[in-house]
Amino acid sequence: MQPYELSLTAAADAIRERRLSPVELVDSVLDRVEEVEPQLGAYVALTAERARREAVEAERDVARGRYRGPLHGVPMALKDLIDVNGMATTASSRVRADHRATADSTVAARLGAAGAILLGKTHTHEFAFGLTTPQTRNAWDRDRVAGGSSGGSAVAVASGSATFALGTDTGGSIRVPAALNGVVGLKPTYGLVPRHGVTSLSWSLDHVGPITRTVEDAALVLAALAGHDPRDPASLPVPAADYRPGPDADLTGLRIGLPRNYYFDHVHPQVETAVRHAVGQLAAQGAQLVEVDIPMTRYIRATQWGLMVPEAGAYHERTLRTLPELYQEDVRILLEAGELMSAGDYLRAQRARTLMRAEWARLLEQVDVVAAPSVPMPAVGAGEETVDWPDGTTESVSDAYVRLCAPANITGLPALTVPVGHDAAGLPIGMQLLGRPLGEATLLRVGHAYEQTRPARALATAA
Amino acid sequence: MQPYELSLTAAADAIRERRLSPVELVDSVLDRVEEVEPQLGAYVALTAERARREAVEAERDVARGRYRGPLHGVPMALKDLIDVNGMATTASSRVRADHRATADSTVAARLGAAGAILLGKTHTHEFAFGLTTPQTRNAWDRDRVAGGSSGGSAVAVASGSATFALGTDTGGSIRVPAALNGVVGLKPTYGLVPRHGVTSLSWSLDHVGPITRTVEDAALVLAALAGHDPRDPASLPVPAADYRPGPDADLTGLRIGLPRNYYFDHVHPQVETAVRHAVGQLAAQGAQLVEVDIPMTRYIRATQWGLMVPEAGAYHERTLRTLPELYQEDVRILLEAGELMSAGDYLRAQRARTLMRAEWARLLEQVDVVAAPSVPMPAVGAGEETVDWPDGTTESVSDAYVRLCAPANITGLPALTVPVGHDAAGLPIGMQLLGRPLGEATLLRVGHAYEQTRPARALATAA
Repeated sequence: MQPYELSLTAAADAIRERRLSPVELVDSVLDRVEEVEPQLGAYVALTAERARREAVEAERDVARGRYRGPLHGVPMALKDLIDVNGMATTASSRVRADHRATADSTVAARLGAAGAILLGKTHTHEFAFGLTTPQTRNAWDRDRVAGGSSGGSAVAVASGSATFALGTDTGGSIRVPAALNGVVGLKPTYGLVPRHGVTSLSWSLDHVGPITRTVEDAALVLAALAGHDPRDPASLPVPAADYRPGPDADLTGLRIGLPRNYYFDHVHPQVETAVRHAVGQLAAQGAQLVEVDIPMTRYIRATQWGLMVPEAGAYHERTLRTLPELYQEDVRILLEAGELMSAGDYLRAQRARTLMRAEWARLLEQVDVVAAPSVPMPAVGAGEETVDWPDGTTESVSDAYVRLCAPANITGLPALTVPVGHDAAGLPIGMQLLGRPLGEATLLRVGHAYEQTRPARALATAA
Repeated sequence: MQPYELSLTAAADAIRERRLSPVELVDSVLDRVEEVEPQLGAYVALTAERARREAVEAERDVARGRYRGPLHGVPMALKDLIDVNGMATTASSRVRADHRATADSTVAARLGAAGAILLGKTHTHEFAFGLTTPQTRNAWDRDRVAGGSSGGSAVAVASGSATFALGTDTGGSIRVPAALNGVVGLKPTYGLVPRHGVTSLSWSLDHVGPITRTVEDAALVLAALAGHDPRDPASLPVPAADYRPGPDADLTGLRIGLPRNYYFDHVHPQVETAVRHAVGQLAAQGAQLVEVDIPMTRYIRATQWGLMVPEAGAYHERTLRTLPELYQEDVRILLEAGELMSAGDYLRAQRARTLMRAEWARLLEQVDVVAAPSVPMPAVGAGEETVDWPDGTTESVSDAYVRLCAPANITGLPALTVPVGHDAAGLPIGMQLLGRPLGEATLLRVGHAYEQTRPARALATAA
């Protein structure tokens, strides 16, 4: 096994025990980037030189006993919405051609302080406002979409060109590409990870979180990211915690909600089969399955888009007037739609969210976790804009990919996607676990317990 | 002194010590209502029979040693936005002609449980959307406005036709009429007093709070009102507390912020003189005066109206379409304006609020309390719609009365108004004290210390 194939947890153990040097790890990952990047296009910008320099420093520090913890010397990728001092934050947009960040975002600063080494910035669907990331290709099939908007981050992690990465998630943008590329993605509780220095799409729905190869890896990254920062007005005053799941895979006493409605409607049969099988594994580990009713489902789509579209329009108001021609057409149309929305429509969406939060809180008194598909279908072909369902209905690909993710954005509840197999074409399938506010430790415990029932996965091979 | 003239604190002491029976007190106040109500018009509906019945029960309970605390047997008035089971909540509007509440609001239930006796429901400016309460007359001069929107409650307390009352405050609606009628009004911290069962004007700015004759009275009522209720989504999970100020009037160590800008601009000279004199009294009691700069003042008006108008429009959306002719014209025009506002305008107001909260938090690190006028001028004549300032500018009466109150609604900070004298025409003047979130105890302590420097006040005499 090459160093670039190691999970973050395995790499960290090897570095700590001095079986692996950060220089070897970074060199191996950079070689892998060179190998696969021409085919996959995950990166906007690489910082190879800086990474090699930092790897030498990390090697020296570890050798001298100044080991900073599990991220020390580990190479990472950051979605290009996340400010890194001195680098452009392009948001994969021509609008940002002349942009340069003059300070680190909170998350970049925290990961840097933990010793992680930046490899580069990864592609996003322009300003995170889309579900495909057209610049990037799926790690398992180059003719398929990467998913979005954190497509570059998910593909980098899935293909071995980063040991871990950060994404952002406003309507599924961590979970969708993670599921479509067979990796783990965690959208934390709203407010747990500060967004200071991260380009906003829709501030009442935006989250930052890890994309990793294993659930344990996600726990390690979350521990470095979480904690209060008053510069994000929504940041919660909670202390950082240790999220690492214990070795015990016994789920006795845990109640897992299995949705009777919504989450299995208009879902590809192979996705449903894989997710139900994975839920069965959780039951075999002792969890009690409880059928639950998902509340207010007819309002989910309107609430998600009703919050997101005007907030995005407000954020882009100025550049939309001065530089409209620099936006991609799909994104520009959505942003312009936001400018036409009435305050009443937005207020209806805010009120629906308040009610939805209360209903989900009641649901999560009955169960500890809800298990569901992450997305209704595996990666679609590049350029496909709609999906047809067996009942004769047609849905836009965007709507389909947002549909099962949106409840956790609207309510702010934490949601984890874990890979649960592949369809007949070899495309990955993800299971989503939703939990209570600040219930990340429980989600990670369940996800980790599931992972232990499966053999270790090989990296994606499309490149 | 007649029982109707007693402060709540004095009445409570007398009832507890069995020097006064709730029956005597209620009878005295009802006699006073009969005397002054024809001239003042504070009440929408009286519940005299029910009050006399409850007074008998209270008398019996107290005699048997089942004393419930300082509100037991004390007659109160509730603004007619506050639901009382079985009674209409008219909001002083023809739109509510057929309305009947089928349950108590949280505050009515809590006051009832504390033994307070309802005398009736008091007039509000229609749906709380105005600053004059045209149905009611000022307790000190019948040709002057009562102030609003809680005009009926303030006039009832000022004239002796209720021992205490509740108002609501979205842009000054407790503090404006309290100041204009020479009584105490407290707008608590946003979320401290639950609004379940209270008709909404603008849910992100709405507060419920006491109107009383003394600061100590306000503390007694607040103690009964405060505490979490999940049925109000904004309700804070804080326990009830004892807010009663101690007897010590020494303010040594307390820092009082005196605004250099905004709060003394476009303020009637006699108001400025009275407030500065009162602040001098606080300094004489040991407080340290610190000049402070009020932040973001050019955004206050736009933020207040930018939040209030669309939220009010959204609340009234249905009846505005079906029954527009039943609204008063001033209120209908404001509500219709809300329906035309864009989501972008509302979002700008929300973002300005977020920044303003952060700036005020910084200001309140420098000082414990900010002291300022409550309103820029005493009660204007009924029917006056504008006020002229010496620099040649003209302002609408609504804007002028909202202007100095709005910062506490936008930020959610607690604000107390206390009477600090009268102008040459004998009209009352109020001083406003603003504090930190959940800093009610400090505000009440300062207000109480100020009160001890003044002789006890007689009731208003316009009737």
